[in-house]
Amino acid sequence: MTDFTADDHRFMAQALRLAERGAWTTRPNPMVGCVLVASGEVVGEGFHVQKGGPHAEVVALQAAGDRARGATAYVTLEPCAHTGSTGPCADALIAAGVSRVVAAMRDPFPQVDGAGFDQLRAAGIEVESGLMETQARALNRGFLSRIERGRPWLRIKLACSIDGRTAMANGDSKWISGDASRADVMRWRARAGALLTGSGTVLADDPQLTVRLNEDTPFAVPLRVVLDAGLATIARGNVRDGAAPTLYVHAHDTKVPHGFDAPRVSMPRGADGQLDLHAVLATLGEGGINEIQVEAGATLSGAFLRAGLVDELLLYVAPMLLGERGRPLFDGLGIDTMAQRLHLQTIETRQVGDDLRLLLRPKPAS
Amino acid sequence: MTDFTADDHRFMAQALRLAERGAWTTRPNPMVGCVLVASGEVVGEGFHVQKGGPHAEVVALQAAGDRARGATAYVTLEPCAHTGSTGPCADALIAAGVSRVVAAMRDPFPQVDGAGFDQLRAAGIEVESGLMETQARALNRGFLSRIERGRPWLRIKLACSIDGRTAMANGDSKWISGDASRADVMRWRARAGALLTGSGTVLADDPQLTVRLNEDTPFAVPLRVVLDAGLATIARGNVRDGAAPTLYVHAHDTKVPHGFDAPRVSMPRGADGQLDLHAVLATLGEGGINEIQVEAGATLSGAFLRAGLVDELLLYVAPMLLGERGRPLFDGLGIDTMAQRLHLQTIETRQVGDDLRLLLRPKPAS
Repeated sequence: MTDFTADDHRFMAQALRLAERGAWTTRPNPMVGCVLVASGEVVGEGFHVQKGGPHAEVVALQAAGDRARGATAYVTLEPCAHTGSTGPCADALIAAGVSRVVAAMRDPFPQVDGAGFDQLRAAGIEVESGLMETQARALNRGFLSRIERGRPWLRIKLACSIDGRTAMANGDSKWISGDASRADVMRWRARAGALLTGSGTVLADDPQLTVRLNEDTPFAVPLRVVLDAGLATIARGNVRDGAAPTLYVHAHDTKVPHGFDAPRVSMPRGADGQLDLHAVLATLGEGGINEIQVEAGATLSGAFLRAGLVDELLLYVAPMLLGERGRPLFDGLGIDTMAQRLHLQTIETRQVGDDLRLLLRPKPAS
Repeated sequence: MTDFTADDHRFMAQALRLAERGAWTTRPNPMVGCVLVASGEVVGEGFHVQKGGPHAEVVALQAAGDRARGATAYVTLEPCAHTGSTGPCADALIAAGVSRVVAAMRDPFPQVDGAGFDQLRAAGIEVESGLMETQARALNRGFLSRIERGRPWLRIKLACSIDGRTAMANGDSKWISGDASRADVMRWRARAGALLTGSGTVLADDPQLTVRLNEDTPFAVPLRVVLDAGLATIARGNVRDGAAPTLYVHAHDTKVPHGFDAPRVSMPRGADGQLDLHAVLATLGEGGINEIQVEAGATLSGAFLRAGLVDELLLYVAPMLLGERGRPLFDGLGIDTMAQRLHLQTIETRQVGDDLRLLLRPKPAS
């Protein structure tokens, strides 16, 4: 294992920050940042903005020009070795005369997967990998989930009261979280490849499920996905407005109404008679979706959790009590004893306006 | 209004920190701290440790000796003007030749209530009050509640999961919060004059309800109070063990079992047939209880909340899900519409071990 220096860490941290600037635009590609350093000085930097556009390394090399010769390239992901939308970055780094490449991690994408490192080494470039890998993996958790697990990273977003209620018994949930939280949700939506909801929420709330930002930052428009086994909600208009593409997911056995022409895909039903959620995620992963944000009610949220498909829970806790008749966060968990409880790990706690925002991840039973 | 200087604030902050060192011992007296400053230098400081012991001002004057002459005394509460367990502090400050007294607040205790300031002024001492009064009031919120409202400050302590459940449907709640939280609860118990629970909790958990600290810091032993209208739990032993005094509160109409000799007090029943909680708190206030910590189930906790008697909620949120069948924080709130929701104010958020500790206060409807 290489001993990286404090400078190595500093420049990689800078590359990671650069990479994250692509969070709303790079998908389905991973976020990548690159910093070129010669004689302890940054001579070029760049990040990947969007598919089809130049990769981070190319942007940094162009900025550095001749100063790239003999420089160290800090990259948050292994440089690509294949010709995709653009030429291979490994070639570009070699051509520019870079002497050392420090990567945060190997790219598990089958057309790279070590081949980039091999090409660089074959050209006599010193290659090291693994610097700040944990941070780099966290950054691209969506891309990595799709490549390594064959399904998108799944985040459930919920807003609840201090007593853990997401709505009144009558379904009313306007508004539990405050303005600042609702604006914050939009930024999390912007980094998702798909925003997914269920038929219950469509019927109850008729949500638009789009990204509405108070800023000009560009973002790739997320796909809206409606899980509607029986296509019972297709008359509800907001989720089908022109603001974004919408995909209906229904059951194989559902008769598609005559004249229904929205994009749709059919899925098998699971043992419980509901749509097979594993199959749904596999299909969305094949479609290039890295990260899904689920915004649904307790039934669908509970079903994802029960199926072991929830990777993180983004929870806005508002300082109020809705009472014991209010709706729960998750339904159908079937927990009867303390031994069956589901452990979570707190990733981040943060005040957003008057609300508390928690980012949590299910913890494997120890 | 006086313009206080940065130094004034600094010395008063020091006096407040000193005062708080009496948090576990001064009751039923208020916490008071005093800092004596001459020529910009602290020449004496002190805090009130316990009833019957010297007041903060006297401790500070003894430490200062002759250097008190011409000094400024920073006190977190108006110096007393009456002879209680000890002589009046106003006299002591005058005798020592202090030239200026800066108090955080007037003492609303009827035997003081401005008389201390009057005595000091009559002796030619410059007197100012109101510096950091908000902090001083927060510090002595228990004492002030008893004096000004005729009832103790009431804190409800609860531990729950992320989904707002305090126990399984079968009542099992061991353990939701972690070791660090349970140790932290002990420190909050130590500052309460009374620890109150209900018959349901006694029957279900047979709690000891004592202060068990892993440190040697002295504390006044809190009274244990069991609300048990029908005296149905008197056979349960832990809450009656020798570790602390226990007071049973039952209904006027309850026949006291022959031979039952524990301290007890009877109360009227309210309109709902349950013990009149306002009357219970008034009685405990008359008994010198400044601060009550309620550790009970959803029924009693909900009843206090419904009665508008909850001043703060100390909530330990553990990173786990207990599911929709788990028990709620509060029962019987009778909230059906969003308009009826109860707003809270977040006073403090803090990580305690793996748990999140929230201190919240009910917010008057705006």
